[in-house]
Formats: sequence, structure tokens, C-alpha cells
Amino acid sequence: MTTGELLANQNDYLEAGLHIATKTKSPGMKKFVYKVREDGLYLFDLKTIDNRIKVATKMIASYEPRQIVVTASRIYAIVAAQKFAEIIEAKFIKGRVTPGVFTNPNREDFMEPKLIVISDSRNEKQAIKEASKVNVPIVALSDTDNSTKFVDLVIPVNNRGRRSLAFVYYLLAREVLKGRGTIKSNEEFNYSISDFEANVESSRQPARQQNF
Amino acid sequence: MTTGELLANQNDYLEAGLHIATKTKSPGMKKFVYKVREDGLYLFDLKTIDNRIKVATKMIASYEPRQIVVTASRIYAIVAAQKFAEIIEAKFIKGRVTPGVFTNPNREDFMEPKLIVISDSRNEKQAIKEASKVNVPIVALSDTDNSTKFVDLVIPVNNRGRRSLAFVYYLLAREVLKGRGTIKSNEEFNYSISDFEANVESSRQPARQQNF
Repeated sequence: MTTGELLANQNDYLEAGLHIATKTKSPGMKKFVYKVREDGLYLFDLKTIDNRIKVATKMIASYEPRQIVVTASRIYAIVAAQKFAEIIEAKFIKGRVTPGVFTNPNREDFMEPKLIVISDSRNEKQAIKEASKVNVPIVALSDTDNSTKFVDLVIPVNNRGRRSLAFVYYLLAREVLKGRGTIKSNEEFNYSISDFEANVESSRQPARQQNF
Repeated sequence: MTTGELLANQNDYLEAGLHIATKTKSPGMKKFVYKVREDGLYLFDLKTIDNRIKVATKMIASYEPRQIVVTASRIYAIVAAQKFAEIIEAKFIKGRVTPGVFTNPNREDFMEPKLIVISDSRNEKQAIKEASKVNVPIVALSDTDNSTKFVDLVIPVNNRGRRSLAFVYYLLAREVLKGRGTIKSNEEFNYSISDFEANVESSRQPARQQNF
């Protein structure tokens, strides 16, 4: 990959709406805002999103798979993040993280992650709190209204939209596998974006129903 | 290393003043401020500094040495950063980065870094500008008054003090070598903090004069 080249086609990015944020901006997210749309929604710059995905996957790929914990709480994020975790062989926590899960070795579900990937800091406050107790680095998909407190690496992106979430986790999974050397090219990545997408009623045939 | 363990002795950290910042805080640095000292100086939390050094070195270690460019402009930073670059075998740019150095292949000094490590975003604006043109991720030592615009990974730290700069670059160098597997333990790291420290008039014998 040449420096400066995007990971995905610009039109695909735009169509999936990765750059479409919210109407609120938190102090930490301000610097990622590219412009405001007429209807008041903030927009991210695609190049920034793309660049952060590269940086994040480089970082994620440098950890042992089982040392990574991925979290998600809402359905669109859950489907996408769980698929991502499955592909990169990370652990996945759905919903609220139990207090003590990273700090209390007597717990049955105790784990010692070295890196946490968060889908939405607003919904996963507890995960952030627990991770920051044990000083575990946090990578977080962050919309303009997300707090970046305790987040070590922000991936500025629409983290509420179904297609946006599917797209970003698809890219993250592919790039982590490439970063690890598990696959050499995009062509070797045997998944489609729809594998990361939550099914909506009677919308279409899921590409790989068995995976859900 | 156990999760939560600091990279260095807490007293050594405090003595070197890594946590002592400035009296100004930029919006992006606000979240790193731990408290305000009586004299008005903002202070960083040691655990946050330590944690970011870990995250940064993990990231730096994942790049090829010659794909990394380290920059510094002022004497204390130059000595420390140059030593760091030498040890991790990265490229080093002292002072102002020439416009076009990352974008114009016809230049004699043209280079295509994949990662930039910045000592001070205020003094190295040009490096940040050039790096952001080609979407190269930026890791930056950042004091409370530094802008974090375009910075992908902030290492919150006193980046003006001689001893603080020596200490932080010493740790970065050691941890990158450990991250790469070049050395297995701290004991195998054959450098001392004074190797990273700028000489002040008649203060002491430089540990390795030949390197300066």
C-alpha cells in the first residue's frame, strides 16, 4: 500500500456514511470535525478516518489475539464487533462489563486483557472504567458526541449506523489480519461487509447465515 | 510485566519531573491534566504518562526501523531524541522539516516515513504539516500547552525539561527494543539516562562523549 492511499473506495466510504457524525461535539472530538452539514450534522474527514483505521490496526495487530477484548452494547455494534472479534480471535464482551472482571482474579470470568477495543464510549462506560483501573490501553470508535476521556486511540467514525459499523469493523478485521501477515492481500480476506451487518426485517438474504 | 506495573520507579519519574507541565492547557490536552499545583502549573498523572509510553512503544515497535522519522528542534530534545533514533535505528530530523521532504520524490532528501515521532508540536509544526499531507501517523510528546491537532497518539509529558526529555526518550528506546524482541529485559539495555541528556556547562562527564 502506498502512503496516502485509502483502504477503501471513497464512494463506498461515503455511501456507508462513516463520515456522518452527530449534532453534538465533545471537547476531545472537536479536532476531528471536518465540517458541518446544512442540517447541522458534523462530518468527519474520510482521510482522517482511514488513517486512524490504519494506525489502530497496526496497533491491534501487535498484540496477541487472546490479549485483546472487544466490547459492544447495541445490536448493530454487537453484530459487527462480534464478527470482528471472531475473525481476529479476540475475546468479545457483549453489553455491560462486570465490575472486577479485569481486577478480581477470584472471579470466574476474570481476564487480563492488554488492549480493549470499544464500540461506543457512551454505552461502554463500565468497560472503560474497568480498563482504566488496570491501565489497559483503549482503542475506541468515537462519534463526535463521545467522550475521549481514558481513550488512548480514537477512531473517529459514525459508530451508530448499521452500515457504517459493518464497514469499519470489516476494514479493521481485514487490516489486522494483513498486519499480522495472516493474509497477504484484500483478495484473501474471505468475508463481505454484509457478514458484519445486523439483519433487518425482510431486508435481504444474509450472506452467511450460519455465522449469526 | 504485570498489567498495571509502572515502567520505572515512581520516585525516579517524580524526580525527573515528567509530570510537571505548563500553566496553559490546550483543548486537546485538557483530559490529561491530573491537577493544578499551588504555583499554577498543571500536573500529569504518572500512570497516564507511563501507560501512553507503553502504548506508543508498542506502536513504534510494529514499524520497520527505517520507516520511522523522529524530529526535535531544541537542544534538550535534540540530544534525547537523536539518541533514541540512533538506538532504535530510525531516521532523525533536527530542526525544521523542509517542505516537500515527504511529498516530492524529486528531492534529494525525499523520504517516505510510515510513522513520525515528534518532540514538541509547537516547534515542529512544519513536520506535522508535512506528515499530515501524506497521512503519516504522528506520535507526539505533548505538554499541556501543545496542540494535538493532527496528532494520532499523544504522550502527555513535560517535553521541555532536560531530565524529563532524557528520561522519556530513554524509556521509549528501551521499550521499543523490548517490543521488537531485540532485548529481553531492562538489564540488557546498555544505556543510561545520562546518555540521553544534553550536557550543561561543567556539570559532569558525559557518559559517552563519542556519541554526541
